[in-house]
Amino acid sequence: MADPSSFASPEQFGTKHLHLKLDVDFSRRVISASTSLTVRSLQDCLCQLTFDTKDLTIKEVSVNGQTAKFQLGASHRFKGTPLEITLPFPLARGQEVIVQISSETSPKSSALQWLNPEQTAGKTHPYLFSQCQATHCRTIIPCQDTPSVKFTYYSQVSVPKELVALMSALRDGHIPDPEDCSRKIYRFKQNVPIPSYLIALVVGALEGRKIGPRTTVWTEKEFLDASAYEFAETETMLQKAEDLAGPYVWEQYDLLVLPPSFPYGGMENPCLTFATPTVLAGDRSLAGVIAHEISHSWTGNLVTNRTWEHFWLNEGHTVYLERRIDGLLHGENLRQLLALGGWKELQNSVNTFGASNVLTNLVPNLHEVDVDEAFSSVPYEKGFALLYHLEQLLGGPDVFLGFLKAYIQRFAYKTVTTDDWKAFLYSYFKDKTDILDKVDWKGWMHTPGMPPVQPKYDMTLANACTALANKWIEAKESDLSSFSSEDLKDLSSYQRTEFLTQLLLHEPLPVSHVKRMQEVYIFNDVKNSEIRFRWLRLCLRAKWEEAIPLALKMSTEQGRMKFTRPLYRDLYNFDKARDEAISTFKKNRSSMHPVTEMLVAKDLHLSS
Amino acid sequence: MADPSSFASPEQFGTKHLHLKLDVDFSRRVISASTSLTVRSLQDCLCQLTFDTKDLTIKEVSVNGQTAKFQLGASHRFKGTPLEITLPFPLARGQEVIVQISSETSPKSSALQWLNPEQTAGKTHPYLFSQCQATHCRTIIPCQDTPSVKFTYYSQVSVPKELVALMSALRDGHIPDPEDCSRKIYRFKQNVPIPSYLIALVVGALEGRKIGPRTTVWTEKEFLDASAYEFAETETMLQKAEDLAGPYVWEQYDLLVLPPSFPYGGMENPCLTFATPTVLAGDRSLAGVIAHEISHSWTGNLVTNRTWEHFWLNEGHTVYLERRIDGLLHGENLRQLLALGGWKELQNSVNTFGASNVLTNLVPNLHEVDVDEAFSSVPYEKGFALLYHLEQLLGGPDVFLGFLKAYIQRFAYKTVTTDDWKAFLYSYFKDKTDILDKVDWKGWMHTPGMPPVQPKYDMTLANACTALANKWIEAKESDLSSFSSEDLKDLSSYQRTEFLTQLLLHEPLPVSHVKRMQEVYIFNDVKNSEIRFRWLRLCLRAKWEEAIPLALKMSTEQGRMKFTRPLYRDLYNFDKARDEAISTFKKNRSSMHPVTEMLVAKDLHLSS
Repeated sequence: MADPSSFASPEQFGTKHLHLKLDVDFSRRVISASTSLTVRSLQDCLCQLTFDTKDLTIKEVSVNGQTAKFQLGASHRFKGTPLEITLPFPLARGQEVIVQISSETSPKSSALQWLNPEQTAGKTHPYLFSQCQATHCRTIIPCQDTPSVKFTYYSQVSVPKELVALMSALRDGHIPDPEDCSRKIYRFKQNVPIPSYLIALVVGALEGRKIGPRTTVWTEKEFLDASAYEFAETETMLQKAEDLAGPYVWEQYDLLVLPPSFPYGGMENPCLTFATPTVLAGDRSLAGVIAHEISHSWTGNLVTNRTWEHFWLNEGHTVYLERRIDGLLHGENLRQLLALGGWKELQNSVNTFGASNVLTNLVPNLHEVDVDEAFSSVPYEKGFALLYHLEQLLGGPDVFLGFLKAYIQRFAYKTVTTDDWKAFLYSYFKDKTDILDKVDWKGWMHTPGMPPVQPKYDMTLANACTALANKWIEAKESDLSSFSSEDLKDLSSYQRTEFLTQLLLHEPLPVSHVKRMQEVYIFNDVKNSEIRFRWLRLCLRAKWEEAIPLALKMSTEQGRMKFTRPLYRDLYNFDKARDEAISTFKKNRSSMHPVTEMLVAKDLHLSS
Repeated sequence: MADPSSFASPEQFGTKHLHLKLDVDFSRRVISASTSLTVRSLQDCLCQLTFDTKDLTIKEVSVNGQTAKFQLGASHRFKGTPLEITLPFPLARGQEVIVQISSETSPKSSALQWLNPEQTAGKTHPYLFSQCQATHCRTIIPCQDTPSVKFTYYSQVSVPKELVALMSALRDGHIPDPEDCSRKIYRFKQNVPIPSYLIALVVGALEGRKIGPRTTVWTEKEFLDASAYEFAETETMLQKAEDLAGPYVWEQYDLLVLPPSFPYGGMENPCLTFATPTVLAGDRSLAGVIAHEISHSWTGNLVTNRTWEHFWLNEGHTVYLERRIDGLLHGENLRQLLALGGWKELQNSVNTFGASNVLTNLVPNLHEVDVDEAFSSVPYEKGFALLYHLEQLLGGPDVFLGFLKAYIQRFAYKTVTTDDWKAFLYSYFKDKTDILDKVDWKGWMHTPGMPPVQPKYDMTLANACTALANKWIEAKESDLSSFSSEDLKDLSSYQRTEFLTQLLLHEPLPVSHVKRMQEVYIFNDVKNSEIRFRWLRLCLRAKWEEAIPLALKMSTEQGRMKFTRPLYRDLYNFDKARDEAISTFKKNRSSMHPVTEMLVAKDLHLSS
């Protein structure tokens, strides 16, 4: 099965191990790399290997120590440039060789963000972090940049000696760089086979603090206290996750809290979750992001989608596990509320893409589609909704967890497609195929828009949110005085988020309403970014000018794409804010994450 | 941690993949091999690799295509000869290279049994089979012959074209041998990492018949109908095993029924269980062997003992699973009977070795001990008894199965020691450590003789056996007429086995008693080998001369060591039988399996 997002051909050969030597040059903003790939042929008379690259300079290639010819193919808009290596001798099926490639990245590598000292908390040292998912590993090193190929890796990274390097692997010590006494070499080993998108690197003035038996939190020292406080429940979450999904096989679960330009809430890099500082809410109210990343240790990192068309297998199962953890920690009622919130999140995405857009299919066709542009909450929330629907059909949470555990055990260390998943579902529930046969699989998987069926939710916690939201929707100007800060007294932060989500699914409120809401609820002062983000969107849609500077500030100060992009879009759609949004973006784009920059530029109809 | 049974050093480097080319020469009784090992260094500046070999001729070694120097070290009595390869360039930690070794086996390779056409059922074609467990793989190819190292393999095997080759792997087609038109090349792939002892090869006039969705039974055509009948329940057993242990990850579960000289009941070679024809009882009463081999697909093959000192982790858990399958298929009462039978089997082994012999430790010290000589039912039955005892202490079968599943999931694709197992037990039952702390671990694991505690058994099925056994033990000559064939009417074959086992644990019966037993029960005619074997031992111990030819016949006709060795030992201890036993052995030794021959020669105080 071909991966439409890669030039490498996993049906011809597979990479089994990487031995990496990286040299990080902050002055030139490049990484020099020696990549030794252990490659296994899957066919006889294999004479050529094709790897993915993008914006790389390839210097030299050898195969088992013999210099090998290579050439770069035609460049593709987003897939990059295939590297074609002619083998000095043909390979037989099952035969392995060592391919060594010397290369260098470009300063515009879309996987890497290079920060000036001024862009860090400490203001003294530069900082570098990577984000390879989905298809950016090829901008760091040549590789089979497809999740269908999994390999172990060992790495040594040379960095200025005053900095610390970490990777998505177990730490294996550090030594002075024998070639440059101003530098250190950090070493890492990842003995569990992983796909290329889980390679990750960070270099900066990092400090670590142990917060659990297998967890150290790493960040600039300015964030260390706040991070250690915010993530204190990590070990408890890990244990709940193990109760649900089985033993944790990655040994170490470290956390890295990045500078604000990190484009995602979290990234499940193995042994070292990357997290946005946005989740430092100060009250642990956003630690759910960590439950999500922890869950990826099973679904995604151990059982991996074979191509990005099957991304829902990674994300749907992970959201399912994440919400089971939330349920164990905070009660089934909260799981129900979050499940319902997810449905609304999905509705939002369907509204944004349009209900007939094939990118809202659970299993989209990604032929000639840039994965970054297709990214949305659909695989997360349509995926979750399907699993939650199946949970209800097949006998409830305990029964469905049995399936999930068996699914993880069956496909651990492997990759899966939707067909594999479905075949296993049918074989596990071999006594319930009559129920399964009634599921509208085509409707769920291969049809745009909302799912064919909505699962049932316990509405206990949601009803209070709906009642308040409806009160605002139905309120005339003369009713506004009836609202007061008391309205929110019994609503948790999850419920406040849900309240705002519900309002966002309706026609924009009149500006008078949002003004009044600020008077009584003072949302402008809220730190919790999930609430703040929804609140600012509500204001922008109400065309309340006062929200413009706040929205520009939030979208500038924080790199999390799921907040930044909608805020910029809403600003762009608000005549009075458009020019300011464009000029703010232009001023700040050089310090934005490369992928965020590309996507926002598109949203603002600017060329990149 | 060192493996006392191997010269290879798994702490310095690991083998990740084998690419094998084997050429099977029946006329010279040798296999020529090209073995390409993908090796990963675990340390810096690694300059030498040591592999295990035994009775091999090494012709040539290259590393990444460069010729490399090598030498053979001093030979050890049973460990063989270390092959020391000097690397042409030093390896860094995490670096991989391809080591290619050309070699040839000796006709006396202890892993291989070469059969003349006359020794086969078809009488037309020669036959070859391998048995690598525990330390014989090194007599076929150079390798890290320690279970602590696991690798995938791909193999192509050239054999005379009228024969069929099979290996412990997925079949990957066959082609004419381009170098010799009288030969064919069979190809195999094993994509799950396995230890060397699970490499297996068979070549003969084999035919296959599909008996389940993932099972083909292979044997000479003369045994095909009987084999297909006997193993018809395989798919049902596989499904029960999956219910207990989790999904089966090896895709194919084929069965090979060997010629009678195969020395074990079964060998859990992955994707292709090897089975003795002895289990063809004609009534499926010995299919429990298959439940055992199936269970090894999880415990042993997926979760593997790191050294042979921890063999009980393989066998104890496998017997536990096997008996759970028996319980699911035939009722909990049978599981209880078999558990009790196992305790008596253990008592037998302790009696044979002597209650103070350290080889009866659950975790023996194998420093300078030949694993073949240490082999007994101790790891099976003392291991089972410990797990069964823990089942009772910790909350019963369902609770304990939760642990077993988690253990399998945690250590799948890895290797384990007793300490790893115990640490995981404590972490899984973290709320029951007070119970665990009361277990006499030293007594169970590091003390010879019977365990410190006997588990409880439901005696429903056993009581009838005990009553009958006691009746025989207490019977005076004048009572013998009271026995009749009616006594056995309500006893299953499992109970008949248990009845005889109980008698074997007492002082020998008078010869008058065994004569009468034959008159009324006609055990001489029984085909079930478990019953027949115990019956003949009972007769030999009663010094009944009439049993001598039957016992010699059974020990000659069937290669299963667990029957052959005790029968020869009992014959040897019976003055009137000793000379005949020795001369029979001398006459037949050339057609015995090499390991069986070595051990029986020792038992009979003959030099090999």
